[in-house]
Amino acid sequence: MAKVLTSKEENYSQWYNDLVAKADLAESSAVRGCMVIKPYGYAIWEKMQAQLDKMFKETGHVNAYFPLFIPKSFFSKEAAHVEGFAKECAVVTHYRLKNDPDGKGVVVDPDAKLEEELIIRPTSETIIWSTYKNWIQSYRDLPILCNQWANVVRWEMRTRMFLRTTEFLWQEGHTAHETSQEALAETDQMINVYASFAEDFMAMPVIKGAKSANERFAGAIETYTIEALMQDGKALQSGTSHFLGQNFAKAFDVQFANRDGKLEYVWATSWGASTRLIGALIMAHSDNNGLVLPPKLAPYQVVIVPIYKNMDQLAEISVKVNEILAKLKARGISVKYDNRDTQRPGWKFAEYELKGVPVRLAIGPRDLENGSIEVARRDTLEKSVEKIENIDQLVEDLLDAIQKNIYDKAFKFRAENTTKVDSYDEFKELLNTKGGFFLAHWDGTAETEIKIKEETKATIRCIPFDAPEEEGKCMVTGKPSKRRVIFALAY
Amino acid sequence: MAKVLTSKEENYSQWYNDLVAKADLAESSAVRGCMVIKPYGYAIWEKMQAQLDKMFKETGHVNAYFPLFIPKSFFSKEAAHVEGFAKECAVVTHYRLKNDPDGKGVVVDPDAKLEEELIIRPTSETIIWSTYKNWIQSYRDLPILCNQWANVVRWEMRTRMFLRTTEFLWQEGHTAHETSQEALAETDQMINVYASFAEDFMAMPVIKGAKSANERFAGAIETYTIEALMQDGKALQSGTSHFLGQNFAKAFDVQFANRDGKLEYVWATSWGASTRLIGALIMAHSDNNGLVLPPKLAPYQVVIVPIYKNMDQLAEISVKVNEILAKLKARGISVKYDNRDTQRPGWKFAEYELKGVPVRLAIGPRDLENGSIEVARRDTLEKSVEKIENIDQLVEDLLDAIQKNIYDKAFKFRAENTTKVDSYDEFKELLNTKGGFFLAHWDGTAETEIKIKEETKATIRCIPFDAPEEEGKCMVTGKPSKRRVIFALAY
Repeated sequence: MAKVLTSKEENYSQWYNDLVAKADLAESSAVRGCMVIKPYGYAIWEKMQAQLDKMFKETGHVNAYFPLFIPKSFFSKEAAHVEGFAKECAVVTHYRLKNDPDGKGVVVDPDAKLEEELIIRPTSETIIWSTYKNWIQSYRDLPILCNQWANVVRWEMRTRMFLRTTEFLWQEGHTAHETSQEALAETDQMINVYASFAEDFMAMPVIKGAKSANERFAGAIETYTIEALMQDGKALQSGTSHFLGQNFAKAFDVQFANRDGKLEYVWATSWGASTRLIGALIMAHSDNNGLVLPPKLAPYQVVIVPIYKNMDQLAEISVKVNEILAKLKARGISVKYDNRDTQRPGWKFAEYELKGVPVRLAIGPRDLENGSIEVARRDTLEKSVEKIENIDQLVEDLLDAIQKNIYDKAFKFRAENTTKVDSYDEFKELLNTKGGFFLAHWDGTAETEIKIKEETKATIRCIPFDAPEEEGKCMVTGKPSKRRVIFALAY
Repeated sequence: MAKVLTSKEENYSQWYNDLVAKADLAESSAVRGCMVIKPYGYAIWEKMQAQLDKMFKETGHVNAYFPLFIPKSFFSKEAAHVEGFAKECAVVTHYRLKNDPDGKGVVVDPDAKLEEELIIRPTSETIIWSTYKNWIQSYRDLPILCNQWANVVRWEMRTRMFLRTTEFLWQEGHTAHETSQEALAETDQMINVYASFAEDFMAMPVIKGAKSANERFAGAIETYTIEALMQDGKALQSGTSHFLGQNFAKAFDVQFANRDGKLEYVWATSWGASTRLIGALIMAHSDNNGLVLPPKLAPYQVVIVPIYKNMDQLAEISVKVNEILAKLKARGISVKYDNRDTQRPGWKFAEYELKGVPVRLAIGPRDLENGSIEVARRDTLEKSVEKIENIDQLVEDLLDAIQKNIYDKAFKFRAENTTKVDSYDEFKELLNTKGGFFLAHWDGTAETEIKIKEETKATIRCIPFDAPEEEGKCMVTGKPSKRRVIFALAY
């Protein structure tokens, strides 16, 4: 049948856009830069949310909700933060509309101007720390371990579905601690939570590391990141965890009586992951036939398609399918039976391939006679005919195998596309021919980092936590370096 | 010990505010009319969300996400809707700040004015129907059964925690149908879902009915509602479901080819419930000692408090408590063991009473000797000493009994505070002395309804679905009436 997607090889960016549209994940809206997350895309987000939320709660966090609006003056309180965030944002200036005196719809009522403008939160450190001031008096009130699931707005000039949208959904953790060590341990714990989620659920290998000063969150002392490699050789930052030191406590005057009875500023972290993860999921695994979803995050893991010529046959098949459905559900497997008579099996096969359903079962009259069923796996596109008898065990094992295979494939891809380079010329050449992650020595200065970015568009993705100590020379300046960092082009 | 709450009898409104604050449910924020939902309050919302979401999915709905922003012009497209909603709302006019030339923080950049202002959604019919236009061509595309969990903003002049806040959290279902009958059936189904949720989970009896024309949602043909009675005799609208006819389809030109191949406008419903439900939950059941939570929505259903004199005793008690914890958890009961050494048992008892934890277990050294444990239930404040052996079964049964008792109590209260009245004078007198629901005849005109509202502040809460036909005369005009409607003062 006709391919509905532009191929990755022909135009990766168009392939991505086609896939987001054709797999019914999202579409653009009437509002510039804002997307509509369609039910199938949102179902993936719900799976992600449920798992992350569970992991946050297992590490002692609770959810709360803070206002969407932030008074403009709050942004000026933390100097680095305002530079990073307050500039490109949605500003509420009025609180009322009135009928247009000319009779054409409604206009902003000039009498309803706010005394102080309100900013739609681009991130919530400021409003949250202004609240924490009321919650914290003594070390007994610490730690505070809050997370919030929310929408945020950053006025982006160039937007792309999931990867960069004006409004997006995310979670933001904001914690308050007695000591610097405790806050650092939290920062570390949460980047590990993100890494486990990415690897064990998204089947996406990531590199954990620290951002260079240049790439840190606005207001952070340290930013930890997980970086994944997409199939076009570009990096995608998939979650960050920030050690904020006492910056926000000082900006909002949040002090506590410590165990010695002395007043001290509170130590902070924040950490977040967003609907951007859906973009990462798409680009890490999918192919020219459509989405490839890891079973642990697929809205349904199995689809069953009946093959029949008349309604009597469908009725017979459905009896058998109902048995299979019950057995699969009993194992906690999510399964959809598509018995719609308005579409033919071939159309359904293509549809579920496009939507990345990990396992497809097809069953017809001959299968009923033979006690057989056709099993197709989405990751390899392999098909086989199996006995219907133990199909539930087989599917359960197959889902595990698919989850593992998708991860292994992405891991292998990353290994093949991670290159050690020692000369800047080689780096520049390979960056645009081969792409991927580049392990290179860097002299640790912002100047060199900026020069590389200006000349090649590549950035330091992170200084990996597990980078071995190794004497080397910066590939640009020749100055000494103690370990390799990761450079890449990035989303 | 000293009471931390103003008593209900002394000042109901202050009692409510005290309770919201002292039970750590919510607090006001730096932004006028916006609240911070604190972890304990948010945990109740999460329980509500999880249950409602389950019920929505069981009735075939899926979740999606639509933009926070709505272009101003969208509101002018549905005439009634703009009158009801577009006036008091937050308006985004600019998309950038810049450094104040005077060096004092940041100011709005006048060069970054939007061509068309954006409204923060007060409800999403307009942005959603502008989207549905792309999704619907044929009857095969119907029904569309989407729900969205989101924040919305209505610029309220007088706000109250949970009951009326500028920003609030809610869900809004938006469905599209082939026929009027199907849309009406959906409207009906969803008010029943809300009623089941209110009665079976919130333990709050409700009356289902239709709103009078005057009280309908702006843009609806019919609005169905569930109305609950609070302990101060005022009504609280707890969920609404709207039959929108073809109003929004016409406003956004959403037509479909019907089964006869003819173009027709799509039929619509919308339905919503919000964090207001937390206000209802508080006011339906709580007492002068604090919250009373129905076990099905309590963040934790059981708390265990150890009574000890030294750490050795605590260690011994904890061994036994760990056994109890395991047994309770195995039954799906959520339980907290408060072994903090920083607070005394008496303080903990008061704290969990304030927070409405349904069952409190206390265990000390003598209990260990005797194989006993003290069981206290929050709803009746009764205490008893029980055998430790079958405590898990006992607690499970007790939670069911508490859930039922809370409902029965609220049901009895409502029965005692529902009055049939036939004269307007009697109505006016009892409205302010007794309060509650009033069953009265009404002539069905907006004039009479408005007159009553202006003179007494009472409104028609609904025309109950189960109101028996009964010939009568309007208590105000004496004109004929076929059934009694419910009047009350309302939140």
